[in-house]
Amino acid sequence: MASPRPTSDHPDELVTAPTRRPGGRSAAVRRRVLDAALAQLVQHGYDSLSIEVVAERSGVHRTTVYRRWRDVGGLLADVLNEAGADAWRPPDTGSLEGDLVAVNREVYTALTTDPVTVALIAASFRSERAARALSAFWAGRYDRCADITRRAVDRGEVPAGTDARRLLIATTAPLYHELVLLRAATDADLPDRVARSATTAARAGAFADP
Amino acid sequence: MASPRPTSDHPDELVTAPTRRPGGRSAAVRRRVLDAALAQLVQHGYDSLSIEVVAERSGVHRTTVYRRWRDVGGLLADVLNEAGADAWRPPDTGSLEGDLVAVNREVYTALTTDPVTVALIAASFRSERAARALSAFWAGRYDRCADITRRAVDRGEVPAGTDARRLLIATTAPLYHELVLLRAATDADLPDRVARSATTAARAGAFADP
Repeated sequence: MASPRPTSDHPDELVTAPTRRPGGRSAAVRRRVLDAALAQLVQHGYDSLSIEVVAERSGVHRTTVYRRWRDVGGLLADVLNEAGADAWRPPDTGSLEGDLVAVNREVYTALTTDPVTVALIAASFRSERAARALSAFWAGRYDRCADITRRAVDRGEVPAGTDARRLLIATTAPLYHELVLLRAATDADLPDRVARSATTAARAGAFADP
Repeated sequence: MASPRPTSDHPDELVTAPTRRPGGRSAAVRRRVLDAALAQLVQHGYDSLSIEVVAERSGVHRTTVYRRWRDVGGLLADVLNEAGADAWRPPDTGSLEGDLVAVNREVYTALTTDPVTVALIAASFRSERAARALSAFWAGRYDRCADITRRAVDRGEVPAGTDARRLLIATTAPLYHELVLLRAATDADLPDRVARSATTAARAGAFADP
């Protein structure tokens, strides 16, 4: 579950080395604006975000930013839409436990080392558009993760009828709960431990209706 | 897991019928101020909260409010401290599944019908003091819920060594994740279904280290 983060930490590179392909200019403008919005959010918080600030920070004319993204909610929604349009696929390690451990390590890393994820979660409580886009981002991630459950059923590791979404929520929700809501101390064993619990639960049929 | 909510929807009653016991005046002032802060938060959001607004709404002099609570973070922290000092005990239904279902129905009701809980979660992303107080509130709830696991171990329902916190997080986290972070549609079966999954997992030893 790669976190929604900027693809470049150096948006200025896009100015000195513009892409040549058709649509490159528009894509480069989008990249600069979204990177600027995300960097501003992470460094100075939601309250500091505005079309003006993002325009100045990105070097893109404010009229262009205003016309294309309209407001802060539009900027954050596009950050999340773009992040969700990537090529991320869930890990395929050959076992259910291995797959869930790998997913949880990605979530754990995002929540403990990358300020983008928590900043976007916080922003989702301020902007209805950001909230909807974050829900859509996660829905896409959970949909792709259904492959993990399908493979585990095919291998006979878990009962047929195991619900992929319920299993993935059981795997990942305790990490968000501990780290984002309960603000627990970091615990390097947490992702593996919770993934193993979810695997045991799935094998016992906890996510298959009787 | 009763939600942190005001004990009276009518703080004015406290003015017309003051308590007579020692400390009653101070307790009544606190009640009026905290009720006013919570009502303001729920109705108009975090940005509308200030010592001035809460003083006016509660009818308590602003100097008193300022001296005792200092700022918005102090008000929200005291709301949560007071909520956590109540007499709530976890349900005791005679079975692990019954206990976890009862806990989850309380969480579900709080998250779907009472705006206070989500408003305080949202506020915790704005105020460090509110965040710490919310963590402490939940820590107290999870501590009290350890009785549920202890009884289940005593009854032989789950293995000795089952970790109470891990079981309770597995039971409740999916509700917060679905309803607060993923903003899923309400689903009346959710609390019972997740509680049953957690029960199956616990029986299979998912929360006991090998």
